[in-house]
Amino acid sequence: VEASFVARCACLGLLLEVSAYPKPGNVDRLHDFPGTVYEHFLASAVAVYPVLEEAALGGGGGVGSFILRAVSESVAWQKGGNTHFGAFTLLLPLVMAAGRVESLEGLRGEACRVVWAAGVEDAVDFYRAFSMGGVKVRPLEGEFDLRRGVDSVDLGLFSLMEVASGWDLVAREWVEGFPRSFRAADNIAQMAEERGIRDAVVGAFLEQLACEPDTFIETKAGRDAALWVMRGAGEVLESWREGCRERVEEFDCRLLARGLNPGSSADIISAGIFIALLGGLRF
Amino acid sequence: VEASFVARCACLGLLLEVSAYPKPGNVDRLHDFPGTVYEHFLASAVAVYPVLEEAALGGGGGVGSFILRAVSESVAWQKGGNTHFGAFTLLLPLVMAAGRVESLEGLRGEACRVVWAAGVEDAVDFYRAFSMGGVKVRPLEGEFDLRRGVDSVDLGLFSLMEVASGWDLVAREWVEGFPRSFRAADNIAQMAEERGIRDAVVGAFLEQLACEPDTFIETKAGRDAALWVMRGAGEVLESWREGCRERVEEFDCRLLARGLNPGSSADIISAGIFIALLGGLRF
Repeated sequence: VEASFVARCACLGLLLEVSAYPKPGNVDRLHDFPGTVYEHFLASAVAVYPVLEEAALGGGGGVGSFILRAVSESVAWQKGGNTHFGAFTLLLPLVMAAGRVESLEGLRGEACRVVWAAGVEDAVDFYRAFSMGGVKVRPLEGEFDLRRGVDSVDLGLFSLMEVASGWDLVAREWVEGFPRSFRAADNIAQMAEERGIRDAVVGAFLEQLACEPDTFIETKAGRDAALWVMRGAGEVLESWREGCRERVEEFDCRLLARGLNPGSSADIISAGIFIALLGGLRF
Repeated sequence: VEASFVARCACLGLLLEVSAYPKPGNVDRLHDFPGTVYEHFLASAVAVYPVLEEAALGGGGGVGSFILRAVSESVAWQKGGNTHFGAFTLLLPLVMAAGRVESLEGLRGEACRVVWAAGVEDAVDFYRAFSMGGVKVRPLEGEFDLRRGVDSVDLGLFSLMEVASGWDLVAREWVEGFPRSFRAADNIAQMAEERGIRDAVVGAFLEQLACEPDTFIETKAGRDAALWVMRGAGEVLESWREGCRERVEEFDCRLLARGLNPGSSADIISAGIFIALLGGLRF
């Protein structure tokens, strides 16, 4: 698929994700976080465009180097800190794969080949991106401890993701072959026909959130909090399907008040919108 | 200036313009129009990225051809119709100029040279873009009548803009050397330091609106309506400067209720944000 088409789908995916609302717990067009506001996400999504395009073109460099460059552009263009670390980690292999395939049917298989090939150099770049982005996630421990510095890395990035998949949804997508991202894409494409793109993104987000605990919440606030959010999402999902926004808005307020932001689920939705746009979704 | 830097500044300029609020009378993150919603503007802003980049690279083609290609990408990526016709008409010469100069000091002079050189071929492309975009503005009359078809064009685009400058702010910018866009850029850069990017865009918009009648309103609703909006903007501008948002929100409601949308002023603000970002504004 043509690189500029791929890059535009990815950039617009990031923009539509952050713009959807009511989107429980995360930054959206109506809700900022202290120090990180909606406009930081807009700037970051545009900042990475050249990196997305080059990744789709298949120029030199592994997936780790593209993630590092994406984070580097993101933080150079806005002062809100880590806006898209997880989203880039998920999107870049998909973007690279999209640039390599003739049609969408091959996308998933190719994305798996990209992540399987992610080696030690990619891990070093990923660690560098990690520090640069000021990411707040659970550090790897023991022999994988980030604090030991990048010189001590001797495991490939895919292997590291296998380790991290125990506590991180994005890592789980890498290891399992992106099932959540493709499921979200199907949901979004279908719901967009019925209710428009805005509600489709919210609906897909709630479905993902109701499916399994958000690992960004789990890392920051513990498993109980993540389970509470998951159950809450399941409860409001039914109302949402019936066209009632109020309960979702209430749920959003409760999450914001408790500082619970389902960042990993949002990353998956960004990837899902990207895949849906790539598949021809227009609105 | 590097093409991908220029293109990102232009794309982000479009996004920040449409996202600013309360922004009296126009589509923003809180207000859609029937058939044209906020997401259409997001999609259109991303859709034109490759055209912006190529215009900055200085590849073949005059300013008319880049405007035509921008409109063509915009309508291919979203179904909301004309989102950015005026903004593209204003931005493209500035983008082309930015790609040609070493530093920002030469930007204004170079942009003038770009528009002065816009000839008959550019006019033909501009007319084509006009039809494609489904633009609702005052048609040229008599010998410039668009309805006579593009084959009858025998005046250059700059000359057409001189004619249109009587009733169109964007044409006036072309003819006068972009004074409003550069003034808006200065306002935005200064206010962003004090109040952040979001309020800076709103403030610059109100200042432009209070300065002279918006010609998009004038064309659609007449001179009295445009003067009424201009005076109203002047009245709420003082409150805005003192940090009071409520009067601006009320003014927004009044404009929306009367269907008065100051599209030409918004175009100038997009160009202003672009120039400010190009000059190094970060937030």
